[in-house]
Amino acid sequence: MTTLTIADAHALVVAVMTDAGHTKDEAGIIADHLLDCELRGLSFGGLARAVSIVERIRATAERPGPIEVTAETPVSATLDGGDQVGYLVGMRALELAVTKAREHGMAVVGARNTWYTGMFSYYLEKASTAGLAGMIAGSGPAVVAPHGGTEGRFGTNPIAFSFPATPTPVIWDIGTSAVMYGEVVLKARLGEKLEPGQAHDADGAPTLDPAAALEGAFGVWGGHKGSGLAMVVQLLGMMSGAAAAPPGISDCGFFVLLLDPAVLTDSDDYHRRVTEFAASIRATRPVEDGVAVRVPFDRSVACREETLRRGVIDVPDAMVATLRGATCG
Amino acid sequence: MTTLTIADAHALVVAVMTDAGHTKDEAGIIADHLLDCELRGLSFGGLARAVSIVERIRATAERPGPIEVTAETPVSATLDGGDQVGYLVGMRALELAVTKAREHGMAVVGARNTWYTGMFSYYLEKASTAGLAGMIAGSGPAVVAPHGGTEGRFGTNPIAFSFPATPTPVIWDIGTSAVMYGEVVLKARLGEKLEPGQAHDADGAPTLDPAAALEGAFGVWGGHKGSGLAMVVQLLGMMSGAAAAPPGISDCGFFVLLLDPAVLTDSDDYHRRVTEFAASIRATRPVEDGVAVRVPFDRSVACREETLRRGVIDVPDAMVATLRGATCG
Repeated sequence: MTTLTIADAHALVVAVMTDAGHTKDEAGIIADHLLDCELRGLSFGGLARAVSIVERIRATAERPGPIEVTAETPVSATLDGGDQVGYLVGMRALELAVTKAREHGMAVVGARNTWYTGMFSYYLEKASTAGLAGMIAGSGPAVVAPHGGTEGRFGTNPIAFSFPATPTPVIWDIGTSAVMYGEVVLKARLGEKLEPGQAHDADGAPTLDPAAALEGAFGVWGGHKGSGLAMVVQLLGMMSGAAAAPPGISDCGFFVLLLDPAVLTDSDDYHRRVTEFAASIRATRPVEDGVAVRVPFDRSVACREETLRRGVIDVPDAMVATLRGATCG
Repeated sequence: MTTLTIADAHALVVAVMTDAGHTKDEAGIIADHLLDCELRGLSFGGLARAVSIVERIRATAERPGPIEVTAETPVSATLDGGDQVGYLVGMRALELAVTKAREHGMAVVGARNTWYTGMFSYYLEKASTAGLAGMIAGSGPAVVAPHGGTEGRFGTNPIAFSFPATPTPVIWDIGTSAVMYGEVVLKARLGEKLEPGQAHDADGAPTLDPAAALEGAFGVWGGHKGSGLAMVVQLLGMMSGAAAAPPGISDCGFFVLLLDPAVLTDSDDYHRRVTEFAASIRATRPVEDGVAVRVPFDRSVACREETLRRGVIDVPDAMVATLRGATCG
């Protein structure tokens, strides 16, 4: 492992991303997001993701176009991401939605033709800082089978909701697949097995082999109820014009809806009541021998504070070498 | 069992509801909703619910007030339901949301101070007919424990999403509790046991006894992910001002958000793509020895068509007697 200060890790990602064709500002937006993943202990979405981004850019012959607004009303906008990485498209979508929701009370922005939008909680934490509640849903390539089926129809389709509160917002952010894409890829590399029920092979038979799962389909989370939610997310993502089943890492759909609680109620009072309700959840009597009940996003915030106290992150040597190599590529 | 024509069952509910103090129009709105439950095979929400509504009205000393708009913007409204039954408040909320969403592309309406709002898919089917996509969430009395906890914090908290499609909309409508309230009450009456993991007693110990569960707390659906969704629903419901933990059957929160897909994309094209996507889900290769994969709302529509073909519903004799008695009460 190589120990990097957070500033050095950030600078490394900025260097890699500018080298891959981004402006300094764009590289900073990507680095901010990836470093927040590292701070929150989600290293698969951190520096490791920088490697995947560069691979995707280098594997694509066509240069990405600009991010363009293709439709707009006072409360909405649709973006064509120009095949730019989702960290940039997502942030542009969020900024538009925040501006419109602050002016009109609510707003929706859809984006398509993008890939790798990162953690939805990252965007929603910013919306919370602006005093807005929100929802984000994202569709992607058909790798997850519906409940009772054995062929990919849904992306791993994350969905998230957020509510401003003190000291931290309540942010629920989940994937609707039984297993994460990155987890399957990692297990394939390490020669590890999947859990029963997580995947089918290309012939539709249940499989524990991650390589076979990548040729077949992953399972969906939550049985028939969860399968319905995965379908909801796909249909929300498709509302921007994104494909139902895009090929490879491309044309993901991103749907962000923000709402100012002030249009429905006294927003200070609502903020206080959300804060109190979250406290009442943490104070729920736990099951026997159980730990304290957790509020969504609490774990991430605690982990981030702890990493910031340490001031450094540990990154596999090979990854640091790859990233340093990429800046000379 | 008594066999009633659908028209007779409808007339019976109208008679009971006018006798309980509703106008003929109001009674018709309630009867339409309850009969749709019967047609869809969800009899616990049908004529049986009429009995519960009358019991609730007779047990409440204070007469309900009018349904009032307490806050309004071009894209939003907040309703105080005046302690009226939710079938009326929900329909008023839906109508407001449809009007505003058609005019401005999207709208949100929150309602509080109401109870028994029925099937969210009932409202969302109407929104779909108006060409709108939608979401409804509803909070209620604290009877469901968060994951890892043993005390009630959430209502049974349904949430639903809908998308216009042909021949029927896609409507996902679920409860976030491990067991339905009505199911626990019914099992208590019949002396039946709950499933393991569905409830805790008042001391926090796991229980299979429905009576003990009613004194304690139900479990939540979907583990920690589902528990987060139940919290999301509670916080959406509270945005209208509804209490975090209202006492008894009162002050439920109702949150409806409608969106015209036309603001983001070509709505005819989207309608066609949703229809095609739903067809691709139904055509997914099923698991071995499995049945065809189902799209949310398909089962309800098939059941309704079948009941309409039959033209009659079967209702327990005792319930018919109670309802006929109620019209003379």
